Amino acid sequence: MSTTQETLVKSFREYVNKLVTYSQAIAVLSWDLRTKAPRKGTEARSNVIGMLSGEHFKLATSPQMEEYLLALEEPAVFSTLDPILAKTVQECRKEFDRSKKLPADRYQEYVVLTATSGSVWEEARPKNDFAAFRPYLEKIVAFQQEFIGYWGYNGHKYNALLDMYEPGMTVGQLDPMFATLRAKTVDLVAAIAASPNQPDTSFLTKHYEPSEQEKFNRFIVEQIGYDFAAGRLDVSAHPFCTTFAPTDVRITTRFIPNDLRTALFGSIHETGHAIYEQNISMDLFGTPLCDGTSMGIHESQSRYWENMVGRSLPFWNHFYGDLTKQFPTQLEGVNVERFYRAVNQVTPSLIRIEADEVTYNLHIMIRYELEKGLIEGSLAVEDLPHLWNEKMQEYLGVTPDSDANGCMQDVHWSEGLFGYFPTYSLGNVYAAQITNTLKKEISNYDELIASGQFAPIRSWLKEKIHRHGKMKSPNELLQDITGELTNANYLVDYLESKYKTIYQL
Amino acid sequence: MSTTQETLVKSFREYVNKLVTYSQAIAVLSWDLRTKAPRKGTEARSNVIGMLSGEHFKLATSPQMEEYLLALEEPAVFSTLDPILAKTVQECRKEFDRSKKLPADRYQEYVVLTATSGSVWEEARPKNDFAAFRPYLEKIVAFQQEFIGYWGYNGHKYNALLDMYEPGMTVGQLDPMFATLRAKTVDLVAAIAASPNQPDTSFLTKHYEPSEQEKFNRFIVEQIGYDFAAGRLDVSAHPFCTTFAPTDVRITTRFIPNDLRTALFGSIHETGHAIYEQNISMDLFGTPLCDGTSMGIHESQSRYWENMVGRSLPFWNHFYGDLTKQFPTQLEGVNVERFYRAVNQVTPSLIRIEADEVTYNLHIMIRYELEKGLIEGSLAVEDLPHLWNEKMQEYLGVTPDSDANGCMQDVHWSEGLFGYFPTYSLGNVYAAQITNTLKKEISNYDELIASGQFAPIRSWLKEKIHRHGKMKSPNELLQDITGELTNANYLVDYLESKYKTIYQL
Repeated sequence: MSTTQETLVKSFREYVNKLVTYSQAIAVLSWDLRTKAPRKGTEARSNVIGMLSGEHFKLATSPQMEEYLLALEEPAVFSTLDPILAKTVQECRKEFDRSKKLPADRYQEYVVLTATSGSVWEEARPKNDFAAFRPYLEKIVAFQQEFIGYWGYNGHKYNALLDMYEPGMTVGQLDPMFATLRAKTVDLVAAIAASPNQPDTSFLTKHYEPSEQEKFNRFIVEQIGYDFAAGRLDVSAHPFCTTFAPTDVRITTRFIPNDLRTALFGSIHETGHAIYEQNISMDLFGTPLCDGTSMGIHESQSRYWENMVGRSLPFWNHFYGDLTKQFPTQLEGVNVERFYRAVNQVTPSLIRIEADEVTYNLHIMIRYELEKGLIEGSLAVEDLPHLWNEKMQEYLGVTPDSDANGCMQDVHWSEGLFGYFPTYSLGNVYAAQITNTLKKEISNYDELIASGQFAPIRSWLKEKIHRHGKMKSPNELLQDITGELTNANYLVDYLESKYKTIYQL
Repeated sequence: MSTTQETLVKSFREYVNKLVTYSQAIAVLSWDLRTKAPRKGTEARSNVIGMLSGEHFKLATSPQMEEYLLALEEPAVFSTLDPILAKTVQECRKEFDRSKKLPADRYQEYVVLTATSGSVWEEARPKNDFAAFRPYLEKIVAFQQEFIGYWGYNGHKYNALLDMYEPGMTVGQLDPMFATLRAKTVDLVAAIAASPNQPDTSFLTKHYEPSEQEKFNRFIVEQIGYDFAAGRLDVSAHPFCTTFAPTDVRITTRFIPNDLRTALFGSIHETGHAIYEQNISMDLFGTPLCDGTSMGIHESQSRYWENMVGRSLPFWNHFYGDLTKQFPTQLEGVNVERFYRAVNQVTPSLIRIEADEVTYNLHIMIRYELEKGLIEGSLAVEDLPHLWNEKMQEYLGVTPDSDANGCMQDVHWSEGLFGYFPTYSLGNVYAAQITNTLKKEISNYDELIASGQFAPIRSWLKEKIHRHGKMKSPNELLQDITGELTNANYLVDYLESKYKTIYQL
């Protein structure tokens, strides 16, 4: 490497490090806002976050950044870069293009629109007033179509949106995936509903003192492998996991006094995200690669720990004694099998965020089909309410009593998050697919779970997934681990096998 | 105002707002580091704080800032500025000059030196190894003298250092102040020590469960007027108060299980700082004026609430019932007078941070005299240990058993904080002086305290002090409120009157 080139690389590294440091600062300020900030402090805080976000945006889209990218992308230069630096250049290019290809004034309009439409949705939803929300949603969809035009796309227009959350994912992969899920899950849900062997869940809604729940949650997430020396568990209205560095990854939960499930499985879920982030290689720190590679892969880690592990019988065979010690009166006379069946109850419901692991993907499928239709122009926003209700009836056998509990239930569309929903189902599909390989490669897998020894599993996940951060795309990861791309059959097999036993089908 | 000038003013406001916003972000990141951050996360956090501090420094000292200042300082322009903007220009000029007058390489060397000497002090103190610390301290003193040369000064060299923490304060004011304190307090301390009527404090060191202490602390600081909707109380190793905005001012404390005093009076002390910050006018938000005007005035507010109010008999006549309800067994058989005498115990001690309100100023005086000598060159660093011990014996009647408990006890000098210590005594002097006027202007003062009604007192303090932020200098404030400058006689009168009663002298 020539001296000029060394200087260039050093200077670019420092520039990117600064860019990433702004993101870290914003993450801390936002975490504090959502967990600790006093009521009156929110306005001032929003200003600080706004200023730093502006600085971040400026650095990511500056002429200086463009100069760096052009110089480093020169084939003679690019070929000499180490893999981390090469991938960093590609990530910066992606972010640069995504922003710079949009006309600044149109983007500004869009930012104002989504801010407004978020408030409109918040007001309209409790009033069940789709008519009030509709014109905003129509504008958002039009903006998405316009932006896709600037960005360009391969194959389906919707691919451009998918790519923001699941790089490289396409309608071509998603259509067959959802077709499999639809064909198999709809029948399974119907069979479960018809089963005379429904679990009793009444004991899950007794009084579980939040401070006692917290003790058990801390115990269980630490057992799973969450490193409290590099993290915290706090309370927030909406549970989340956020990362300042692999050495500081924080999770939150909320405790519902008369429901044991929410915080318990929510904490295990967020711990799955956190274990991912805590195990990204520190070699990637200070670059945009020090992050989960996609929403879907991230979700696969949270769903793995929440469902495949946290809602499994071997897991509770090991930990149920600890749980009954914490809540002896509430769980009196409830054996581990009854508990296991209860926390795996399947009930078609109107609300996605309350859905069990069998029906969950049907909720996502509905949103995926509608989003795709809106973006390609085959559906109009005004048709959403009735199409939504028809699909709910078709897939889940229930019809929403209102748009508030129907097509207006999620915040995503009001914020312009199109292309995001599929990552939830991808998470489930990936999780089952990866677990299938994991079980083959770790021969005593069931014993490990049944004895609460998760270290070998975590090591495997770290080696195969976590440490790579954004160095591998979701498709690359999946291909490298399982030898194939997205395949929903593993999830279907897992669900059928698990739930046929539980519901004695 | 011409259009050009309007544009200039608008642009300068935005620039300053950004500068201040960096400080706010740094404050949040530092608060989190000291209260919530997991052990492993500190290194990454220090990098973030370092980067943002660098950006802040760049903005404060940029050629752009200099251009703004020169344009706005033009008499024809300056005379048209509103008072807040005019004062903002002056503050920015002060910060600009303070940094720009130092040669960049020398300042850089100094930053490295103080970082190193901090670590050296931390290691040397427990080993009682002054010899190891001495060369670092000598270099720091030499840097202070060199910097004063660049900055310039009026009267005494030490004034240049004082001005950083107490703008406008001079040796000319401090010398007579400390002379008064020395003359009167040394005798008082001796008389107290000789008194046969020493309070019994044994019940203060029983077991006070931290969670129970916390409940009472929250109650008492809210009663005093701390606004929890614009603040939080958390735990940290060293108690502090920090401000992100008047709408978000946070205090910390630490709970010692077998000492009721530390957290209780510590929390009241920090609440005094916090009430000041919570009541600064929002008109000043987004400017460098939205802050306490000086360390001394800040300390006057914390010492007022901690000592003049929180350690007064009328206060406990009102709240002692609440305290005994919280700790019925620990305080069994202890009446309010015994409690009052106990929390006002005077004992000459080696350690400043444990000192009572009578001996405290003698500790400060020793440091002031030694600092002044070091800076003017009449004392050498190598003479510190024995001079320290001589003065301790002379003023307090005790001689340190080691330099660790003597001249090496405080962190300040290792960090280059020369000129800071006097603000602690100024806080006490100001507090007594202001209370004297307050009692004259609020006729039912004693009744208000005795009935726990602090709102009228807070309103008075807000009107006279808090709301002004940095719009008035300490001397201006004091002159406006009391009609005179620093006068230690009010503090001496207060101490004599209070402690002659307590110790029946």
